[in-house]
Amino acid sequence: MGSVGVSLDQPGKEVPWQVKVAQKQQQCRDAIPAAWLLPPSILESLVFPLDKTPNRLLDLDIPRKSGLLSDREIKITEDYTVVELLAKLASGEFSSLEVTTAFAKRAAIAQQLTSCLTEVFFDQALARAKYLDQCRSEGKLVGPLHGLPVSIKDSFQVVGTEACIGYVSFLGKTSDANSPLVDTLLGLGAVLYVKTNIPQTLMTADSDNNVFGRTLNPHNTALNAGGSSGGEGALIAFRGSPLGVGTDVGGSIRIPALCCGTYGFKPTSSRIPYGGQANPGLAGMKPIVASAGPLANDFEALQIFSEAVIDSTPALLDSTVLDVPWRRLDNDTPARLRLGVLPADPLYPLHPPVKRALAEACKKLQAAGHELIELNVSECRVADVTELAGHLFTLAPAAAKAKIDASGEPVVPSVLRMSGVPQLGDQTLTSSLADLDSLHKLAALTVKRQEVAEDWRKIWVDNKLDAVISPAAQNTAVAHDTYSWVPYTVLENLLDYPACVIPFGKASKQQDGDAMKIPPGQGGPDYDPELQDGAPCSIQVFTSRMRDEECLRAARVVDGCLNKESSS
Amino acid sequence: MGSVGVSLDQPGKEVPWQVKVAQKQQQCRDAIPAAWLLPPSILESLVFPLDKTPNRLLDLDIPRKSGLLSDREIKITEDYTVVELLAKLASGEFSSLEVTTAFAKRAAIAQQLTSCLTEVFFDQALARAKYLDQCRSEGKLVGPLHGLPVSIKDSFQVVGTEACIGYVSFLGKTSDANSPLVDTLLGLGAVLYVKTNIPQTLMTADSDNNVFGRTLNPHNTALNAGGSSGGEGALIAFRGSPLGVGTDVGGSIRIPALCCGTYGFKPTSSRIPYGGQANPGLAGMKPIVASAGPLANDFEALQIFSEAVIDSTPALLDSTVLDVPWRRLDNDTPARLRLGVLPADPLYPLHPPVKRALAEACKKLQAAGHELIELNVSECRVADVTELAGHLFTLAPAAAKAKIDASGEPVVPSVLRMSGVPQLGDQTLTSSLADLDSLHKLAALTVKRQEVAEDWRKIWVDNKLDAVISPAAQNTAVAHDTYSWVPYTVLENLLDYPACVIPFGKASKQQDGDAMKIPPGQGGPDYDPELQDGAPCSIQVFTSRMRDEECLRAARVVDGCLNKESSS
Repeated sequence: MGSVGVSLDQPGKEVPWQVKVAQKQQQCRDAIPAAWLLPPSILESLVFPLDKTPNRLLDLDIPRKSGLLSDREIKITEDYTVVELLAKLASGEFSSLEVTTAFAKRAAIAQQLTSCLTEVFFDQALARAKYLDQCRSEGKLVGPLHGLPVSIKDSFQVVGTEACIGYVSFLGKTSDANSPLVDTLLGLGAVLYVKTNIPQTLMTADSDNNVFGRTLNPHNTALNAGGSSGGEGALIAFRGSPLGVGTDVGGSIRIPALCCGTYGFKPTSSRIPYGGQANPGLAGMKPIVASAGPLANDFEALQIFSEAVIDSTPALLDSTVLDVPWRRLDNDTPARLRLGVLPADPLYPLHPPVKRALAEACKKLQAAGHELIELNVSECRVADVTELAGHLFTLAPAAAKAKIDASGEPVVPSVLRMSGVPQLGDQTLTSSLADLDSLHKLAALTVKRQEVAEDWRKIWVDNKLDAVISPAAQNTAVAHDTYSWVPYTVLENLLDYPACVIPFGKASKQQDGDAMKIPPGQGGPDYDPELQDGAPCSIQVFTSRMRDEECLRAARVVDGCLNKESSS
Repeated sequence: MGSVGVSLDQPGKEVPWQVKVAQKQQQCRDAIPAAWLLPPSILESLVFPLDKTPNRLLDLDIPRKSGLLSDREIKITEDYTVVELLAKLASGEFSSLEVTTAFAKRAAIAQQLTSCLTEVFFDQALARAKYLDQCRSEGKLVGPLHGLPVSIKDSFQVVGTEACIGYVSFLGKTSDANSPLVDTLLGLGAVLYVKTNIPQTLMTADSDNNVFGRTLNPHNTALNAGGSSGGEGALIAFRGSPLGVGTDVGGSIRIPALCCGTYGFKPTSSRIPYGGQANPGLAGMKPIVASAGPLANDFEALQIFSEAVIDSTPALLDSTVLDVPWRRLDNDTPARLRLGVLPADPLYPLHPPVKRALAEACKKLQAAGHELIELNVSECRVADVTELAGHLFTLAPAAAKAKIDASGEPVVPSVLRMSGVPQLGDQTLTSSLADLDSLHKLAALTVKRQEVAEDWRKIWVDNKLDAVISPAAQNTAVAHDTYSWVPYTVLENLLDYPACVIPFGKASKQQDGDAMKIPPGQGGPDYDPELQDGAPCSIQVFTSRMRDEECLRAARVVDGCLNKESSS
């Protein structure tokens, strides 16, 4: 820590929030070994400020050009799925030490370019990797994730680090116990090495806060990385982590996945341990229950994570877990799936690349023999759900505000923008709540929510669906602080459905036509063909509540059809 | 319907609530066939008013003496478990028509003596029984409950009947759709024939309301039958139903079971369909989620009900269902169970017969080789939970009151008595809530509740328990309107644990010593050895959340040890 902190940190004297942040940022910089700092040649190849200029970091192949990673380390971080890495770790072909080193180096590079990390504890991770290598050499694999580096969102507690989730007022509180999921992952043999960046309040799609700054999208630094698990999205897309953990109460796993072109899975709530995290809002207030879940660069990683965690009986460590074993489905996946297709809601129109990706996906799925059923737009109630969720999220806003105000730090722009309820459509629900106190509002919203759940039950039964495919958002990643409401992700939170985001294609200024301005009366960011060119597109696959096993089974089929069979 | 209703029911003229009740009660009387009315000789053998005098109806053997049931009908209603009845229905040894007739007759008798019924639809039931017999004769069994009469709590909707749940203001609304559980049971082959009585508001242990009157305990009419599923308890104890359905948010299945000496099972919430019921309070307000579950005279019936309902994938019919399949456990039940024993909380001392039953049960279980671990009383937090639940139940009391007041009917005595929060102990929680609005109260209570869940997680893990055995209440059935707080049942609601009540022994003025007065500072009804003599005792067995399968497995072992092996 720099001496600045010591001299100013006197009792009785209030330390300005900027000083606290400067201290923390210095600590963060110090956590990156000097040998892993990018050489000037790399920095000179970029256009600053990074967030204002479309630097296409992935295309620039920076890790290779930096000279910081050996060829073998480049190979380790680029050429293998999680299954393959785990096999090589188990066989001893790769040591955990070299795999952890490789991903740590690459994470350090990602951090220097995208601000995707918060807490960095490489030394601790490398020591653990050595220990795991020792175990293996004695014939013992600690668990199904033996030796694998895993990154985790800042909200989880890791002993000896902080979990300030971007609040200045939370700085200085060192976690004295691991979150149950952290203990679960360690028990499975994982190596934790970094925590990842988030937005102030955890409630926007721009991972920006006054402590750690703004996470940039490695596909294009002028685009947002998504949120709230935006650090995960950026880090994984940069291949600085093979497997990361995010959380999702409105899309916070899936939005970074769709913005950064990774896979992401939001399970039904409480299947993956969620307990013991830093809380950005009012404790005990969970009108929508959030889920923890994985992000990765390959589909199978989502399955491995979910199975390994749930097979470990996490309810033994975390009383918030719904104690339901993972079901092994029969191996015979139906050859033909019946897939509902969620249509765009008129209030939330799709950007051309998103529309094209969905249409192409449907075409491919049909060509592969799957049956597609266009769902009735009014029955799907996407706009109603968005309004409903907006009210649920804003029932008790004072707590988050107080945590910001406690330090004197300002509210970041994306939080200022997105802190209300969408004022679109006829606002029937909003009017009906006008005279109610907050508890009666909650009750009225719960009734409405149950109505939506019942409507959706009928959709599943009447159409005999195996899964639904849908856009994951109106848009791809967009300019910073312009991401809007989250209709196509919050639907699955409100219904507590498992949902999987699968990358598929990219936005193309050639193919996707002219700019599109969202007119008044509709919601969403405008489409900018130039800026969004090359941004990842994706497809969302979801099933009904507690059918996580069927969701992943269907998603595997869809992923195979969209992303694997084309090469054959 | 009597002509009184027609003449008074004029537009613009408010019908007094007493008149509405008189009409409804006449309808109820008319629903009992004249041929099934008890002969004067039976009525002359009783001492009136029944609720003030200990008439021991079961000892009086009234169904046999009444001459209303044939020997075969007596045999059908008395000599078989549900498994045995189902086998005989499936084989055709008994027709559904004769089984339904037998239980309908006996239910009609029970109703005349205990006021256990609300809606009675024998004609419809007998027609369905004939249909099911026809199906069987064609080689088709509709489902695992083929031909079995099943009774159900008044809160469930059955098309063509009412579900007024004892509110005068709800009278006259005929259900136009079945509750999902009703459809589930019909789909499984059950015959529904009666709905059963409940307390006003469904929130007391005295099933008393201004529409259907007070349900009496057939063991002793001067004792309460329990609530809120008190009609089920009385009906099943009278053997007027082989299998009934109640609901439980604080003990409402288990209290009637313990008062009436039946078996009762409260599953983890949302495993059994709960949707589409008449709601006594504020819609959308469910700080504790209630469960539906079975009551019966034999243990296996609980298992059959739970398995059959959950195997039918009830989430297809009810969006409130947690869509989790029933797990078939390995057949090898552990020969020795590790059973925690929940000690009495000092604030809620046990009546001598309850204490004796628990001690005898422990002795028998130990003698059978099971390992008993006395839990730490302060860790179990029974009194804290009772205070906490009291606050959760009273967050929004206006809605139930409005439903009472709408008709002008009075609040019944047990509701007047039990409508607050227990004011016992140091009231730390209560003080901490003083300045909060109702939504922030809910949040604070949710935090406390999570702390209790976490304390209990540690109890399970540290002690490696298979299940916990506990008293189900401080007391047996007691004098009407004297039942008090429900500490030993609400614990499992607050934690959402599955819990099973197993009848075991009876109160005995010879064995159980002198009267016991609960002193100020402690809660609960006084012990009256004379009045409670012969009242059923019971044991509760519970496991952690979602371990319903393990709960029933442990309960079967306990039941076998307590109630079966003694005869060998």
